[in-house]
Amino acid sequence: MNAEIIAVGSELLLGQIVNTNAQFLSQQLAALGINVYFQTVVGDNAGRLEQAVKTAQTRANLIIFTGGLGPTKDDVTKETIARLLGRRLVIDEEALRAIEAYFARANRPMTDNNKKQALVLEGATVLKNENGMAPGMALTVAGITYMLLPGPPKEMRPMFTRYGIPFLRAAFPLSGRIESRVLRFFGIGEAALETALADLIDAQSNPTIAPLAGDGEVTLRLTAKHRDAAEAQRLLDEAEAAILARVGRYCYGYDDETLFTKTSERLKERGWTIAAAESLTGGLFLEQLTAVPGASRIVQGGVVCYTNGVKQQVLGVPRPLLETDGAVSESCARVLAENVRSLCGADVGISLTGVAGPDPLEGHPPGTVYIGIAMRERGTAVRRLTLSGTRGDIRIRAAKYGCFLLLELLAADR
Amino acid sequence: MNAEIIAVGSELLLGQIVNTNAQFLSQQLAALGINVYFQTVVGDNAGRLEQAVKTAQTRANLIIFTGGLGPTKDDVTKETIARLLGRRLVIDEEALRAIEAYFARANRPMTDNNKKQALVLEGATVLKNENGMAPGMALTVAGITYMLLPGPPKEMRPMFTRYGIPFLRAAFPLSGRIESRVLRFFGIGEAALETALADLIDAQSNPTIAPLAGDGEVTLRLTAKHRDAAEAQRLLDEAEAAILARVGRYCYGYDDETLFTKTSERLKERGWTIAAAESLTGGLFLEQLTAVPGASRIVQGGVVCYTNGVKQQVLGVPRPLLETDGAVSESCARVLAENVRSLCGADVGISLTGVAGPDPLEGHPPGTVYIGIAMRERGTAVRRLTLSGTRGDIRIRAAKYGCFLLLELLAADR
Repeated sequence: MNAEIIAVGSELLLGQIVNTNAQFLSQQLAALGINVYFQTVVGDNAGRLEQAVKTAQTRANLIIFTGGLGPTKDDVTKETIARLLGRRLVIDEEALRAIEAYFARANRPMTDNNKKQALVLEGATVLKNENGMAPGMALTVAGITYMLLPGPPKEMRPMFTRYGIPFLRAAFPLSGRIESRVLRFFGIGEAALETALADLIDAQSNPTIAPLAGDGEVTLRLTAKHRDAAEAQRLLDEAEAAILARVGRYCYGYDDETLFTKTSERLKERGWTIAAAESLTGGLFLEQLTAVPGASRIVQGGVVCYTNGVKQQVLGVPRPLLETDGAVSESCARVLAENVRSLCGADVGISLTGVAGPDPLEGHPPGTVYIGIAMRERGTAVRRLTLSGTRGDIRIRAAKYGCFLLLELLAADR
Repeated sequence: MNAEIIAVGSELLLGQIVNTNAQFLSQQLAALGINVYFQTVVGDNAGRLEQAVKTAQTRANLIIFTGGLGPTKDDVTKETIARLLGRRLVIDEEALRAIEAYFARANRPMTDNNKKQALVLEGATVLKNENGMAPGMALTVAGITYMLLPGPPKEMRPMFTRYGIPFLRAAFPLSGRIESRVLRFFGIGEAALETALADLIDAQSNPTIAPLAGDGEVTLRLTAKHRDAAEAQRLLDEAEAAILARVGRYCYGYDDETLFTKTSERLKERGWTIAAAESLTGGLFLEQLTAVPGASRIVQGGVVCYTNGVKQQVLGVPRPLLETDGAVSESCARVLAENVRSLCGADVGISLTGVAGPDPLEGHPPGTVYIGIAMRERGTAVRRLTLSGTRGDIRIRAAKYGCFLLLELLAADR
């Protein structure tokens, strides 16, 4: 099984966007034990796409396309492959109904060129698009499998995971498994993590241990290779145990978990609700927490108290406190956490106040942050942090620290 | 001038990293007026790299490589190209001294394989590496120019900018300049936009008009090519005028502008402040608005009223209203907008209430959204929307519609 990924889109050749689709598909195919030997990017141009397909046909028996399935004239992927394979394009009725329903829901007139999105290669297995209009498709001709996926990642990723992978598993005898597991860390830097694990990382072979830093977090991707999936998992368990014995306190979750989904889970387990008073994060903490489905069971709401006026009028912070200690202070964080908890009638009140930058505030440099956490019948804890990075970095790190500190308190409270 | 970018590295084919080098080089080449028709990624494998080079030689007269210049055995780029071109690899003394100095500074013994990094193609122009050890190089053979750059972006980017671009400018008559401009649209779909502009897009040649959809927005990238930059700009102005004459009401900005930066600008112009009551968006609207630097001049704050309890206790929505009309209603949106404005003492109060999904609420399907906008001395407007997409789509689209509607009202109020 040699695969080639062909991304179609002039926006990629102009450098307007980066080719994250190729990365995602490469990771997925590696996990299936399918080798990817080439990634190609070609523009919205039928002639050059045809060249790229002919080249791929000489070196791959699985060709996965992303992009060019849309309604516009410069979407040429289906048409080009149909011509190359001598296949007709036929309307997929289910896809057409879905597209019509989409416009009906949106109260928008459906223009004729949208019908084009319901065209599929005759004889292909249609891959349903649950997050957009253009369906995907897959078919095997003369020993080569062609899979066409949409370009937008939020359509392509779930389509490949839900429908593309099962198609591949059915179509090919996929032996030799690669199992991987991601450990997620917060509150420790990449260099410090690598130092703590240096000998383990040096000695790595199976599983491999790959650190990756981003958004103030560090992940370790453990990848084990074994013909037997259970054995591969056992290798991952061993490596994980050795890692957690050293840096376990910084590990908050696995794979796609986030600090916000973990916080949401822990609160649900207790049947607790939360409210937030956000100054420097401007709503980011609650936005992230309410982005988790089922948030209504734990999130009461909160106040974005960006100005001192709102801190006083809505959250009852005494003016003298603001005048003496300032908004960026332990005492302000304490009052904000306690008052937002009672104002919203929640079990937990959390406050985030500080300096996102770029300019200093009340004489404090950007990155100075106070987080207060008030818990029903357990009093209030306040932590001072010094965060680094851009305005955006500081905001998201502060919000994540809010989760991290709350998770620590909840764990200690068991 | 047709260029192809070949990134060499198995880590790309495994999806361990995303190919940001291709994006960076594509942007740079576009700005130089050099067309990029293909991007290719190949692993650290001499045989397959040779295939990729042979393919590129048939379709490009500039081939830029990134990666594979390092000290280890799996770095094969130089060796493979030397073999293909029948060139010897020779030590570049300056590069060798730099490598030796590098190890001296680091107080580390220099292992022999590091000498390999000082090898360059005989007769090539050496491109100095000021941020690492392996030098780059460029040479033209039989009408095709080969440029080899290191893989790490922090080495490759400055090397290309400082030494690669001057080499290209000297090697080629880069007459044609490419100027591009992005028009940003909201409230109209990609297909509808293209239908409205079909004849313009069909007739396009210079400038080209490329639609791209994402995050509920559509952009049109106009790209004009002309030896004279001012003339290229004039061509862009003409095309823009023709486009805006038809769909101008949906166009809110240019290039990197967003609905939130525009909203921030317009409010600053009037010296107005804003407060928000967010139900379904859970803080997203204020988070996005406060992410714009200087937000403190316009954002007072607001209330995330995720539950009816908070709508009543904090924002004074009468319980009877919630019992009869419900939280997803015009009347609730009206009260929320007016009360959050007065509570926070702002000039504008905006409310977002509705159903993000995945489940219906109060009998309304996901995507049902009411946005209220209360303006000082101008009364309150409420708009009902039906949005489509995932929970995340609906939330961000609702927040963006909040900006779009406010911008409409502010424009009408001039």
